[in-house]
Amino acid sequence: MKNKFYKYIEELQDTITAKLEAIDGVATFKQDLWKRPEGGGGRTRVIEHGAVFEKGGVNISAVHGELPESMQKYFGVKDANFFACGLSLVLHPKNPMVPTVHANWRYFEMYDKEGNIVDQWFGGGQDLTPYYLFDEDATHFHTVCKTACDTHNLEFYPKYKARCDEYFWNTHRNEARGIGGLFFDYCKATDELSLQDWYSFVTEVGNSFLKSYVPIVEKRKDLVYNKDQKDWQEIRRGRYVEFNLVHDKGTLFGLKTNGRIESILMSLPPHVQWVYDHNPEPESPEDKLLQVLKEPKEWIL
Amino acid sequence: MKNKFYKYIEELQDTITAKLEAIDGVATFKQDLWKRPEGGGGRTRVIEHGAVFEKGGVNISAVHGELPESMQKYFGVKDANFFACGLSLVLHPKNPMVPTVHANWRYFEMYDKEGNIVDQWFGGGQDLTPYYLFDEDATHFHTVCKTACDTHNLEFYPKYKARCDEYFWNTHRNEARGIGGLFFDYCKATDELSLQDWYSFVTEVGNSFLKSYVPIVEKRKDLVYNKDQKDWQEIRRGRYVEFNLVHDKGTLFGLKTNGRIESILMSLPPHVQWVYDHNPEPESPEDKLLQVLKEPKEWIL
Repeated sequence: MKNKFYKYIEELQDTITAKLEAIDGVATFKQDLWKRPEGGGGRTRVIEHGAVFEKGGVNISAVHGELPESMQKYFGVKDANFFACGLSLVLHPKNPMVPTVHANWRYFEMYDKEGNIVDQWFGGGQDLTPYYLFDEDATHFHTVCKTACDTHNLEFYPKYKARCDEYFWNTHRNEARGIGGLFFDYCKATDELSLQDWYSFVTEVGNSFLKSYVPIVEKRKDLVYNKDQKDWQEIRRGRYVEFNLVHDKGTLFGLKTNGRIESILMSLPPHVQWVYDHNPEPESPEDKLLQVLKEPKEWIL
Repeated sequence: MKNKFYKYIEELQDTITAKLEAIDGVATFKQDLWKRPEGGGGRTRVIEHGAVFEKGGVNISAVHGELPESMQKYFGVKDANFFACGLSLVLHPKNPMVPTVHANWRYFEMYDKEGNIVDQWFGGGQDLTPYYLFDEDATHFHTVCKTACDTHNLEFYPKYKARCDEYFWNTHRNEARGIGGLFFDYCKATDELSLQDWYSFVTEVGNSFLKSYVPIVEKRKDLVYNKDQKDWQEIRRGRYVEFNLVHDKGTLFGLKTNGRIESILMSLPPHVQWVYDHNPEPESPEDKLLQVLKEPKEWIL
């Protein structure tokens, strides 16, 4: 399974970066291959200063070795080895009318000292962070997520949509990072669902990514915007940074276990502002976004 | 003691903000009074868009009530009440030749259920974060810190200088946030030093703040700089954000215990950049700074 899934994310990385480069038309992804001293490595691809994408990364990695101590504590195990691979992407568009998107699909195996697999699971999801809210874009994104889920299990979309709203919650701001999508973890083989079933589900979601995001980019990338709107995007990007550095388990795990810092922090936006006590005008488009972030809503009724 | 120290920081806030406004010449501090629902409140003063200070805050607060659960765990106590007051300041100058400065001086009391004081201590410090390193500025800052310490105890400067280097260490970057200064905490009455002695020490340090920083500002604020140097400042400010949001105990404590978010996060810089895998030219002024941050040095020999 680990080889099959790694091959899948390798190909998916190629598909996604090729499509995004075609959309951007100016910038291309710069590739960095890196090795992890303790085992494994990754293929980081970053785009910067594009016509459409101000900054973004589409990274894959496969790492293995002894389970770091902090992670042993987290999982409540001792003397375990692990293998983990996944694709992580974050795209920060230049135009504030185009939302930022994040996605991650991953597979994890844990071994005992003899090298036997003692646990294995999939995880992942994708979520959208708009600066200006177009209801039809949010509905489109969620519809693609739901369609991918529904092929496998009608309970998946409501369940993983709710988990996404829960996970990407900036507690100290009492608001969501964005308008959500899907979030799932510890997807393990059960009597009803084999590991192969989960593989089919996760790859279905991965394959749906471009369908969920690209039409929104195409529709909004050439909209006219002014400096105030760009400022608002940069202020909201500050909340993105706050979530990733204060709350995001994946980021903190990477920072605290000697991960490749530049690959982890490629998620941080290119230009960011913090303005003291910034509050948009009531009833403005900026305020409309905040109202939705304060109370995550259902996009498919 | 709590009233005496609060009165001291009230006056110090006035002194510092008046002096900084005089230096800036354009912007003034905007004051926000706020109340903490569980007890106490603060006086936040923020300056933005100045000729010298792009953003900064000089805040005082005095809060009290039941010790929040996370803090009970931290201190290993149960059913305690507390009082805490302090002054916190961060200044982000516009000109990249002027360093960012941070300072904090605080006093803490802990009570049992009957309201008896069971513990009380001072803490604080001040530290400098340059974007371009002028050795003479670093030496000046540390000399003022040392002079304030030496009046009280010759062991204080080496001890608190070392603690500062240790505390402001961005572990995930393997570099210091800046070039240090002083950091002390849990300064409690002992056979040798009474609480009054600690009060004298902490206020001596607080009184030395303007002497440590203002001459540097005066000397560098009108230096010419170019866009590359401004970009470098904004990239380095990213490391400042990373430290404050990932590692700084004060910030995380505030965020996780329902503190006043806007007062806590006034420490974040106004404009920040994250550039993928940015490395300055070897031997450049930018690289010279990095070399010092990677290995904190003694500024007074």
